[in-house]
Amino acid sequence: GTSPTISSDLSGAPFGNVVSYSDGVPGESHGIPYFYLTTLDPTARDALEDERTSFTLSEFPLGTCGKVDPENPTCAKLTLTGKLKVVDHKSPEADLAKTALFSKHPEMEGWPKNHHFEIFKLEIENIFLIDWFGGPKPISPSQYLDYGRDQGSVMSL
Amino acid sequence: GTSPTISSDLSGAPFGNVVSYSDGVPGESHGIPYFYLTTLDPTARDALEDERTSFTLSEFPLGTCGKVDPENPTCAKLTLTGKLKVVDHKSPEADLAKTALFSKHPEMEGWPKNHHFEIFKLEIENIFLIDWFGGPKPISPSQYLDYGRDQGSVMSL
Repeated sequence: GTSPTISSDLSGAPFGNVVSYSDGVPGESHGIPYFYLTTLDPTARDALEDERTSFTLSEFPLGTCGKVDPENPTCAKLTLTGKLKVVDHKSPEADLAKTALFSKHPEMEGWPKNHHFEIFKLEIENIFLIDWFGGPKPISPSQYLDYGRDQGSVMSL
Repeated sequence: GTSPTISSDLSGAPFGNVVSYSDGVPGESHGIPYFYLTTLDPTARDALEDERTSFTLSEFPLGTCGKVDPENPTCAKLTLTGKLKVVDHKSPEADLAKTALFSKHPEMEGWPKNHHFEIFKLEIENIFLIDWFGGPKPISPSQYLDYGRDQGSVMSL
């Protein structure tokens, strides 16, 4: 996905970046995206100065939109907007997030220690989902996370 | 690609959106990305209030990164930052941009007239390119556009 922040290097302009994410181990998506970022990259640096971030995913690269244009509303797009926060690396949440990230992005575990990668999470405040005609679907963060919880519990049966 | 703007709906938070683009007819890339946007969508609305926008592309969906993670610096990522401007629909530039867009996104030509799609362009002020280890490559907008001009002229021989 891509993750725009408010750029501190570019005096407040929005700055989009390509980031890998995981919201759970394979087959268990809980909805909160976790990231593994270094302050060598602008996204983490920006977020430490101004937490406001969004995270955008397109269905198009999955290949399931068929011949429809990526901008066509029937090819789903999701933007989560909120705050990008560092997760305390000694917390149980950091352990869960690392498992979620490393299971989907195995090479992360071997990324250079001296780049000081940290786990970040997006605290979701607003959801913009287009998956059909008629404008964005009205979904609140709690509805979205409840769906993730249900999915998680179904998967763990 | 995705195109974050400063959100007017979300009190100044960065807002990323999925947008289709073209910087030339197939085989002729000139570097300036053109978009076909409607103010029914936040990106165009935001840009009309605050032009600061960036535009992010990842090599990953092309499939040419192999098994490398999308966040790995050897999988190229490009962020162009600048101003998103409406192109006067009566100008010669609008004709060129429409040809560039409609040749790569044929369904655009049939999009609903009453949605009032307009051509937008990104006036590039800053380039962030990662395509290998060692941080972003120092490339100025004029170097980037000169390369596009050369490519264009080579292609038109």
